[in-house]
Amino acid sequence: MGDAIYSQLAKKIPCRIYAPIGSFHELLPYLIRRLLENGANNSFVHKIAGKDFDIDEILKNSLDFGTQNPPPLPENIYHKWKNSSGFDLGNLWELDRIKNKLRDFADGYWRAFSLIDGEEKIGIKPQITNEPANINRNIGDSSTANENHIAEAVAAAEKGFREWSVTPVEKRAACLEKLADLLEENKFELIPLCMREAGKTLADSIAEVREAADYCRYYAHQARRILVSPQILPGPAGEHNELRLMPRGIFLCISPWNFPLAIFLGQITAAIAAGNSVIAKPAEQTPLISHFTVRLMQKAGIPENVVQLLLGSGEEIGAALVTNPKISGVVFTGSTETARVINSALAAKNGPIVPLIAETGGQNAMIIDSSALLEQTADDIVKSAFGSSGQRCSSLRVAYIQEEIADELMELLRGILADFKVKNTMEFDADCGPVIDVAAQKMLFSYVKEMRKKAKIIFDGEKISTEKNGWFVAPYIFEIGSICELQREIFGPILHVVRFKSKDLDKIIDDINSTDFGLTLGIQTRIETRAEYIASRVNAGNCYVNRTQIGAVVGVQPFGGEKLSGTGFKAGGPNYLLRFLTERTYTANTAAIGGDVNLLG
Amino acid sequence: MGDAIYSQLAKKIPCRIYAPIGSFHELLPYLIRRLLENGANNSFVHKIAGKDFDIDEILKNSLDFGTQNPPPLPENIYHKWKNSSGFDLGNLWELDRIKNKLRDFADGYWRAFSLIDGEEKIGIKPQITNEPANINRNIGDSSTANENHIAEAVAAAEKGFREWSVTPVEKRAACLEKLADLLEENKFELIPLCMREAGKTLADSIAEVREAADYCRYYAHQARRILVSPQILPGPAGEHNELRLMPRGIFLCISPWNFPLAIFLGQITAAIAAGNSVIAKPAEQTPLISHFTVRLMQKAGIPENVVQLLLGSGEEIGAALVTNPKISGVVFTGSTETARVINSALAAKNGPIVPLIAETGGQNAMIIDSSALLEQTADDIVKSAFGSSGQRCSSLRVAYIQEEIADELMELLRGILADFKVKNTMEFDADCGPVIDVAAQKMLFSYVKEMRKKAKIIFDGEKISTEKNGWFVAPYIFEIGSICELQREIFGPILHVVRFKSKDLDKIIDDINSTDFGLTLGIQTRIETRAEYIASRVNAGNCYVNRTQIGAVVGVQPFGGEKLSGTGFKAGGPNYLLRFLTERTYTANTAAIGGDVNLLG
Repeated sequence: MGDAIYSQLAKKIPCRIYAPIGSFHELLPYLIRRLLENGANNSFVHKIAGKDFDIDEILKNSLDFGTQNPPPLPENIYHKWKNSSGFDLGNLWELDRIKNKLRDFADGYWRAFSLIDGEEKIGIKPQITNEPANINRNIGDSSTANENHIAEAVAAAEKGFREWSVTPVEKRAACLEKLADLLEENKFELIPLCMREAGKTLADSIAEVREAADYCRYYAHQARRILVSPQILPGPAGEHNELRLMPRGIFLCISPWNFPLAIFLGQITAAIAAGNSVIAKPAEQTPLISHFTVRLMQKAGIPENVVQLLLGSGEEIGAALVTNPKISGVVFTGSTETARVINSALAAKNGPIVPLIAETGGQNAMIIDSSALLEQTADDIVKSAFGSSGQRCSSLRVAYIQEEIADELMELLRGILADFKVKNTMEFDADCGPVIDVAAQKMLFSYVKEMRKKAKIIFDGEKISTEKNGWFVAPYIFEIGSICELQREIFGPILHVVRFKSKDLDKIIDDINSTDFGLTLGIQTRIETRAEYIASRVNAGNCYVNRTQIGAVVGVQPFGGEKLSGTGFKAGGPNYLLRFLTERTYTANTAAIGGDVNLLG
Repeated sequence: MGDAIYSQLAKKIPCRIYAPIGSFHELLPYLIRRLLENGANNSFVHKIAGKDFDIDEILKNSLDFGTQNPPPLPENIYHKWKNSSGFDLGNLWELDRIKNKLRDFADGYWRAFSLIDGEEKIGIKPQITNEPANINRNIGDSSTANENHIAEAVAAAEKGFREWSVTPVEKRAACLEKLADLLEENKFELIPLCMREAGKTLADSIAEVREAADYCRYYAHQARRILVSPQILPGPAGEHNELRLMPRGIFLCISPWNFPLAIFLGQITAAIAAGNSVIAKPAEQTPLISHFTVRLMQKAGIPENVVQLLLGSGEEIGAALVTNPKISGVVFTGSTETARVINSALAAKNGPIVPLIAETGGQNAMIIDSSALLEQTADDIVKSAFGSSGQRCSSLRVAYIQEEIADELMELLRGILADFKVKNTMEFDADCGPVIDVAAQKMLFSYVKEMRKKAKIIFDGEKISTEKNGWFVAPYIFEIGSICELQREIFGPILHVVRFKSKDLDKIIDDINSTDFGLTLGIQTRIETRAEYIASRVNAGNCYVNRTQIGAVVGVQPFGGEKLSGTGFKAGGPNYLLRFLTERTYTANTAAIGGDVNLLG
């Protein structure tokens, strides 16, 4: 059907004829896609069938349109805040450039201390940090805080709060934006630090730095939006009413090792954008990144008493901080069990009810119906379940696959995994690195052993060879009967798959909801109403259709779950700062001091 | 200085010459006010001193301006939601009309039951309601819920949630607006019910009905504002991102007797505007109003399974509901101590962290400096401390008076109280009625006895005669040294006054903050910077300058405290509904189903 138009096109612009090649099986969907495309109202094939068409209009070079109407540059796509800068990892020259840059820190050694009012504190026990990917390799050391440090940190943070809370919003926002710039300027040290201390891949480490910078700029934008001016409320003549948002005091920020830079900074930047001071207790697995980052904050102009860093374990340092009466709020990202312990400790303490902003685990499902594009689905499953060694709270744990396509999709998954590389991520072609520590590795191996007895193995991680000098765990896929068989979240590269019949869709939605978690949900379907139907019924904080279910972007996919998975509001969302603030009204009887001048207008 | 202008004015419009009369003491402030007024840029006295002035412009009749630019009608002053209708209580004809209307319910008798899915439930024990103003007078009866009712109510509310949560926002909002209309249509029954069951004055009872109607319309407006459309978030081309706000489930609403209509309905309307279902547990002192109101909700079209009413005590019914695993959120208004108990019970239960929206007590101060207008201040103090028999969480408890004006102000207070009427509010000239019950009366009498020993009496309530057949407590004023001497909130008509020296302002602010409460704050000063200074330093949710510190209006003075006084967000404020909702994101890879049609635009 293209002959007529081709004869005209070929005269005016360079043309290419192409012939799709595929098996009989793929023919029908291909033809339908072409029919839909060519039958669309705005298709040129449709237009030339009409009586009045302008051949020049149809033959317009679309490149000219793009040149005349250039899309925004990557840094400007969010309009209201600057997007962080990334790399084109598909570009081999770019990759080579990164490799060279990272070489500067190949023998890096980092030291970490608790930081109180900017001062380095020597703690009780020195702790050596070895690479999880190479346990013989020592990359730094740190010392944990002692009891005295807690009181000192609280005193410094109290002073910090008094000063920072009355610092103009614009100045606080500018400090955060400066911090974002410093993160980007220091990315070639931060990236290898993430790769080596946390065992992250290059792509994941770049994403860490980007997310951290995005948080800085996004919360600076949000602070300006809601804090610069009070909200004027209506009222009768002669009365002036304002709603003011005020910082709360000292926030305790307890962050996890799986996003040692992004979540660590996300919590802190939200708290300080709102005008609070902070005591940060990062995960004991990743002290080096946190120390480095707090130093950057100080370089960015954030006064030293605004953010105190206390290194140590949750049991010792974290627990003592939670019950401290001077703490006005707690932000926690980590396990559901720890969130519960913190919540109980907060409820047991005297004094005001302290807000707890908790972001915890999930038992995340993906529902794949028979209309899904299988190649894309297989790729999204592998990235969602095995990316970052499955060590994201958003990671896919249970893929529900409609029975008609189940065998074929599993075959594709096996195909991708056959070539999956689990190794030291300093080799850039690693698909994933190690898990965080020996405890995690042991737990996962023991789970695999247990599941070998209970479930059908779809992919056996033993097929992938891994080094023995790191905490590596290869991906596994087990087939089970229902998400309800799982007792808890398994934080690692273990995927469960379940076959389902189309008629049982409501049943599996109920099963997913019955876990009482509600973090992420993946949907793969080419039927939009089906996606909407599932999304509206599954209780999950973040729902992703026809893509991976990981990698939420600040301001784009505000992140956070419901029920057992979190308290809200969503990090990186428009309402998050509100939880770090308290509301005050200010009402003045303007008539009492000589009348309401506004009436003259 | 008015001769020249008067000679011209008198020719054109009716003029009046007036002569202020007063003592020497008042002369200087009067002259200064006139000088400020006449010296202002927009004063005609100033204008005629210039060269180019338009005599016709200056002589314009200001009544014409008002006729040509009419101010909005009272019902339209908020623009975005309709204001509730009030009465002009200064108009004696209007008062007579109200009296006649109220006579219809002079012998009213009301019955109350728990209501589950609209069905009246016979409970374990019948309870007789006598008027607190006349304990010999029986105005109704009620029966308290039993344990089975709890399970039934939860089951009904679960069903209610499934249906109501997917009811269009517009329909939910329309039901609330209909409810507001029904409240106003039924005000001549609701007003005497508030007067007789809760011992409120006519003015307070009218305010109750108005506040309840305002909540309905304000939350309907807010629901439309934030729930009709999801928020579209930015993102890269080929991806569609939405932030959706979803209801949480069943809310438990535990409301107090001091606003048996307004707070009862305020909690419920917020929860249901957001799409939740409700189990309401009103105070055991005021079952009749709550039953009547839930029936009105059903008449307004709110489905019967959306709001269940369970009558009974906090210890029995309330406690069992709080720990029920199906409850997704709790709204509580009442004592700080009970809020703490609820918070601990919630933290101890398994399952998700349940949001608690608590609005509790205060130790509310007013700071009066020597520039305050004393007559107005005295009036504001009496209304704030003794209005509603001091039974508002916002009531003034401690007035800090600058020493230079302390004696004079206390004399004015004694003067007002000499004529203060404490009696059955069905006599419309009552300044206040009884306290709620015998327990409250006993507690207050015992406190007065204790304070007689410890403090200097400024006004002795024994000077006011009260009936013995009701729970009446007259106003008392005690002088003390500091707010820090008070151990707890005393919920009744007892005011404490403290003299302070101007130089000690920061000290008294610290003292007020040291109570750890933070609800209302009154400021009386004619120096604007002083008001701002005090307001910015005292931790209080609602600050009022040169007026009473009670009577927050929905949407105008969003209400709620901080620290021991509450959790936020403020009731009747723009962020309140957010606490009844959870956030979800929906991300679709639009490129996966044939491309991003938005790009064509």
